[in-house]
Amino acid sequence: VGAPELAARLAELVGPVNVLVDDDVRTGFDRDWTGTWQGRSLAVVRPGTTEEVAAVVRCCAEAGVAVVPQGGNTGLVGGAVPSGGSVLLSTTRLRRLDPVDPVSSQVTVGAGVSIAQLHAHAGEAGLAYGVDWGARDSATVGGSVATNAGGLRVLRYGDTRAQLRGLEWVTASGQVVTRLDGLVKDNTGPFLPALLAGSEGTLGVITAARLQLVPQLPERVTALVAVDGIAEAVQVVARVRASTPSLEAAELVLRDGIDLVTGHLGLGLPFDRVPEAAVLLECADRHDPTEDLATALAGCPEVLDAAVATEPGPAAALWRLREAHTEVLASLGPPLKLDVSVAPDRLAPFTADLLAALAERVPASRPVLFGHIGDGNVHVNVLGVDPLDHDVAGLVLGVVARHRGSISAEHGIGRAKREWLHLTRSPAEIELLRAIKAALDPKGLLNPGVLFPG
Amino acid sequence: VGAPELAARLAELVGPVNVLVDDDVRTGFDRDWTGTWQGRSLAVVRPGTTEEVAAVVRCCAEAGVAVVPQGGNTGLVGGAVPSGGSVLLSTTRLRRLDPVDPVSSQVTVGAGVSIAQLHAHAGEAGLAYGVDWGARDSATVGGSVATNAGGLRVLRYGDTRAQLRGLEWVTASGQVVTRLDGLVKDNTGPFLPALLAGSEGTLGVITAARLQLVPQLPERVTALVAVDGIAEAVQVVARVRASTPSLEAAELVLRDGIDLVTGHLGLGLPFDRVPEAAVLLECADRHDPTEDLATALAGCPEVLDAAVATEPGPAAALWRLREAHTEVLASLGPPLKLDVSVAPDRLAPFTADLLAALAERVPASRPVLFGHIGDGNVHVNVLGVDPLDHDVAGLVLGVVARHRGSISAEHGIGRAKREWLHLTRSPAEIELLRAIKAALDPKGLLNPGVLFPG
Repeated sequence: VGAPELAARLAELVGPVNVLVDDDVRTGFDRDWTGTWQGRSLAVVRPGTTEEVAAVVRCCAEAGVAVVPQGGNTGLVGGAVPSGGSVLLSTTRLRRLDPVDPVSSQVTVGAGVSIAQLHAHAGEAGLAYGVDWGARDSATVGGSVATNAGGLRVLRYGDTRAQLRGLEWVTASGQVVTRLDGLVKDNTGPFLPALLAGSEGTLGVITAARLQLVPQLPERVTALVAVDGIAEAVQVVARVRASTPSLEAAELVLRDGIDLVTGHLGLGLPFDRVPEAAVLLECADRHDPTEDLATALAGCPEVLDAAVATEPGPAAALWRLREAHTEVLASLGPPLKLDVSVAPDRLAPFTADLLAALAERVPASRPVLFGHIGDGNVHVNVLGVDPLDHDVAGLVLGVVARHRGSISAEHGIGRAKREWLHLTRSPAEIELLRAIKAALDPKGLLNPGVLFPG
Repeated sequence: VGAPELAARLAELVGPVNVLVDDDVRTGFDRDWTGTWQGRSLAVVRPGTTEEVAAVVRCCAEAGVAVVPQGGNTGLVGGAVPSGGSVLLSTTRLRRLDPVDPVSSQVTVGAGVSIAQLHAHAGEAGLAYGVDWGARDSATVGGSVATNAGGLRVLRYGDTRAQLRGLEWVTASGQVVTRLDGLVKDNTGPFLPALLAGSEGTLGVITAARLQLVPQLPERVTALVAVDGIAEAVQVVARVRASTPSLEAAELVLRDGIDLVTGHLGLGLPFDRVPEAAVLLECADRHDPTEDLATALAGCPEVLDAAVATEPGPAAALWRLREAHTEVLASLGPPLKLDVSVAPDRLAPFTADLLAALAERVPASRPVLFGHIGDGNVHVNVLGVDPLDHDVAGLVLGVVARHRGSISAEHGIGRAKREWLHLTRSPAEIELLRAIKAALDPKGLLNPGVLFPG
């Protein structure tokens, strides 16, 4: 089947206006937003219903053409960029937005609903969605499940998989699997939605999700805590966490990064001197959690100094120190960026080994680390090197592997990291993943070239 | 290979004392504790290490003999009872008990550790394990993962799958997969431990688990609330839940059951008259949650009367009304018992339909329902019929299916319910489950006859 004929068949299924073949129009879908990853699709197809998704997948399967699912296209590892000769299936028209069920605190939404829309929808019902991250305006629910998105509040609410109460998806053969009843207890075999979470479009095309919502917590306190180093920061988080269930975020910044954002952006620091490390803590509760947090911090001998904010303005100023890292690094770079995690008690030795290895083997490099310390999640940014430098990336990921960490904490494997998957997963586990892939997609038509090593 | 030769080979792998072939000794393993389900194994083998488990599985695979994993043998659906001609692999000697990691609040424990031991171990470290249920003294960690155990606090902490931060298991071909690093964020493909949860021994033999622990919450309040019916009970739970994050348990009892336990055991009721339904609520927090719960209940127009207990003795008396149901029913029965769930907003219509169907088609039946109302989980007990009556079971499960519920909320499918799996799972989903089973256990040697319809 040639591309024009396939496009014509797809147009019959979803309407001509929803099959994009124009080169310029497709380009916005065929490359990721950073411009790092790009491919070339035969066509971009935008089904508007689950049945249309199934029909598109069946049509492509009959033609032996691969399907690359794409949500908001906010990914960072090339997981939604088409391989050559494939059809890009955009899920953004799947905008189902069911009423919130107040009894179960759950909601069913289409794959194309953005995370920001989901937040707003939950908010109108007096509830909240537990997962949140910067790309919320563009990122979609379908993409968030396919990549098992994490973000700012994993510490409290877990990742996207933990919110999943049901899923609807289309299999490689074009069958619809609907499991959206939202039963909290249902022990009738393995919960397949949990398998689809993080499968990056390789096991099915997600069309809708049933998600757990959480209570709105109006009372909030934010603290920036100065400590002598990473090990001390980890201790503070562990102590606060054990005594303060309202802890919602724990972010780490280090002296190098603090110097950058205070120097380049003129941000003030609420301490007399620049500490080796600082931890940003945020608690949210129905009661004012300020006293809880203060009590917890008073029990931490590692705390050198602390600034506490209970009002939105001062709290935002504390957050700004952490969030400004990304823009300062972008203005000085672009840096090589790697998103990794290690067990919290390994953060300090991992960081020491990483800095030593970079200093020795890449003397021109200037590493800046920060991240979600509560989850052991470190965003490794390296200035002074090519942002796509393969050897530096391999060097960093090798140090991660030696500390038994994950080579991708949040962003996924995509095309970017599949050659390094063996650093995180054992041969036995990769064999199981391949067996499952072969069983669920025997012709390899769902997102080929993503996740699995070639 | 004959049974004696296989037993001799196994004895070489795990030591003769750990291969049981004596008829009387095996009987304790070959039948479940209720005596309802029994089988006959070729031998019972009790490996003491993960490597021994792998060697046993390889030995059986070479001989073409099936392996039936068994934990504490507390299951209720025949999921750990051997099929004919299989080897029963008892995991109770896998007693690894690593120190609690205070930084991540996680612990790694062997499959054979009991839930009670896990609770005690977490408690010594000043933490708690979120999952708990009656069989805690015998039930094992491995069995709890294999059956995705739920229990009393799913409302707050989720099921066993939600506690899983890692897993170690032996595949059907006898390979060990170790994933115990406990990374909270690790998006390197699907999280296979979540697939093993609830797989009932059909996809692998679980040897160890890495589990999330939770803070100890010393302040506790318990309330028994009288309402006019199930719909009102559901509303109360929804309202309290939305405003009270400390809610940990919400149990339902109905007039028939209340009459039974007050009549037969002489238990007192803290209300002037017997209500149509009562909800037992329990909150736990670091602060005294009594005022929170009282405020929440004051906002519920459905509440007719309420008894509140903040001390252990009076709280236990309130719990006794709920917990005594099981023993009274046993003394009058044994009843036919089915463990099902529906979405909370369907609890009232489901119950009405069920009672009407039983009254019409099985006039001699006397149904008593109670359960974990926060999860939509109902324990259906039917007196006045054969406890194994196939038609009555089918009738009840048919009503569950019409309300889009689960035919097994907590106990699993095992051998008992596999003929009814299609009531809960669609053909497309069962096809995927079968494809995964065939991929991971191509010779069908792991727990044959369990979970999958014949």
